[in-house]
Amino acid sequence: MRTPYLFFLGDVQDDLSAKTSHGIAHWRPEYCAGEFRLPGCGTTLELPEIGFEEAVQRGAKTLIVGIANAGGVISEAWVPSLVEAVEAGLDVASGLHQRLNDIPSLREAAEKHGRRLFDVRHPTVPLKVGSGEKRPGKRLLTVGTDCSVGKMYATLALEGEMKKRGVDATFRATGQTGIFIAGEGICVDAVVADFISGAVEMLSPANSPGHWDLIEGQGSLFHPSFAGVSLGLLHGAQPDALVFCDEPNRPHMRGLPGRLPPDLKECLDANIDAARLTNPDVRAVGVAFNTRKLTRSEAGDLMRRTENELGLPCVDPVATGVGPIVDRVVEL
Amino acid sequence: MRTPYLFFLGDVQDDLSAKTSHGIAHWRPEYCAGEFRLPGCGTTLELPEIGFEEAVQRGAKTLIVGIANAGGVISEAWVPSLVEAVEAGLDVASGLHQRLNDIPSLREAAEKHGRRLFDVRHPTVPLKVGSGEKRPGKRLLTVGTDCSVGKMYATLALEGEMKKRGVDATFRATGQTGIFIAGEGICVDAVVADFISGAVEMLSPANSPGHWDLIEGQGSLFHPSFAGVSLGLLHGAQPDALVFCDEPNRPHMRGLPGRLPPDLKECLDANIDAARLTNPDVRAVGVAFNTRKLTRSEAGDLMRRTENELGLPCVDPVATGVGPIVDRVVEL
Repeated sequence: MRTPYLFFLGDVQDDLSAKTSHGIAHWRPEYCAGEFRLPGCGTTLELPEIGFEEAVQRGAKTLIVGIANAGGVISEAWVPSLVEAVEAGLDVASGLHQRLNDIPSLREAAEKHGRRLFDVRHPTVPLKVGSGEKRPGKRLLTVGTDCSVGKMYATLALEGEMKKRGVDATFRATGQTGIFIAGEGICVDAVVADFISGAVEMLSPANSPGHWDLIEGQGSLFHPSFAGVSLGLLHGAQPDALVFCDEPNRPHMRGLPGRLPPDLKECLDANIDAARLTNPDVRAVGVAFNTRKLTRSEAGDLMRRTENELGLPCVDPVATGVGPIVDRVVEL
Repeated sequence: MRTPYLFFLGDVQDDLSAKTSHGIAHWRPEYCAGEFRLPGCGTTLELPEIGFEEAVQRGAKTLIVGIANAGGVISEAWVPSLVEAVEAGLDVASGLHQRLNDIPSLREAAEKHGRRLFDVRHPTVPLKVGSGEKRPGKRLLTVGTDCSVGKMYATLALEGEMKKRGVDATFRATGQTGIFIAGEGICVDAVVADFISGAVEMLSPANSPGHWDLIEGQGSLFHPSFAGVSLGLLHGAQPDALVFCDEPNRPHMRGLPGRLPPDLKECLDANIDAARLTNPDVRAVGVAFNTRKLTRSEAGDLMRRTENELGLPCVDPVATGVGPIVDRVVEL
């Protein structure tokens, strides 16, 4: 996918439904040419609001449907705008479940105008089943107590800090937002179940011995809807290093009222145990908290307490940076 | 799928490639009208070898492509025969990865003659993500140290024994052979990864409190290629009872030379731990060994030793039957 991006926010009502766009804008401001909103849209990236023609004039190459709605559907109300974008000269990319390529008017317009449609949620390469065989290069995986606790943010912060220190490192995207940020990747929750670990082996191939792949985790071993994805990802990643991600004080697991998130120590032990199947030398190297709902003093207390309990550096990737975790990683 | 079945064995070279057919013939002899082999075929079910016209005259309704080859492809050499079968009046069903419905000449013939093509490996109903919510009815799941250790055989033997005793029980198929036997089911390794546990929740819906769903397991938590499937299946099944399946003395995990199968106790502990996420009351109720490669005295020693070590009834579903495990199940 070619950058810069123009963001299509449609008529979504809140920031959460546009979290894909917000994530890209946070991590890759240099990719962001502007935003396009339909009447009634309830979110903004605070980018220039521009039309398709103007976006092309400013150099934008791809319209990102940066939306995460229930069911992953492309609203019929959006289609005329997407067709207009293609006619104006933009490629279109979406991470939704429903495919851009399955909308006849849009596909026709893309063929006519020589533009491309990217459905990043759907793997386009043939996958293999995982082998479990150890491959050269080093790998770090972020895992979590729950879905949406900040695994992608932690991974991208680690990439930034490691590159700043001159460490040879690559962010490996496993979800739609990550793929828009990296420009490539595989949505592991969208592959056929037989190929989960194989997809991750393909995503993070053999590399030079000192190179670090920083692999974005998905779901949680403790989430009854998605733990299979998380386990296959863990086995395919063969991580040398695990970073544990948590959002403190969640009242329940995402989407499952009444189901409490696991204790961090329990999460740590279960992930280390499971990871040993494909990498017996796996090590925990840190904890990344999302402390946006805590006061600064609550966050500080939590990190000190957890550091004492687990003997691991604790950070908030956004508020404090991930330096102490990278210190630990480079020792490995 | 309508029975009786005619088996299409094509030109496969060995029994292993026709294990789907052998499994159906073993468990449902009453479904089996005959077999159809191409020149050079190296396996037989020892059923009458008959042509398509004769099969229809004898009452056969569906031609089963009961083959499990590498890659799951439909050989071009088979297609003329499959078309002939449709022309003769048979439906065709396959559990291969490649779809019957994607072969134009076959689809045209089916449309013209009003016959149906079943691609049982591919789910045809819209799936949901799992909820993890407990549902009424009782459930037993077979799990294993490895792939292909006898989970389906154990599950079907349990169904037979429980029905003989008048227990209200249903076999729930999660792989292609099981689906041909049950006439319905979902290939869980073929669903999109996000939906593994949800597919199993759908496969085994709420039922009356005394009813037992007997769910066929897949893969192993210790197989690095497929453990994600096994974990999602375990969480979706919410088993009250687990039966552990093993083939003693396997030199290595299936397809992975050099990787030893886990110890049975290790396998038991890991499955019980993981199953507790969606059913804290899960219990181990027995061990099913596949002892076909042992002498009778070796098999007897193994079972006595394992019963002492684990405190669980040990059986071989084919050689000894599963009575002692059912004794334990009906106590629950």
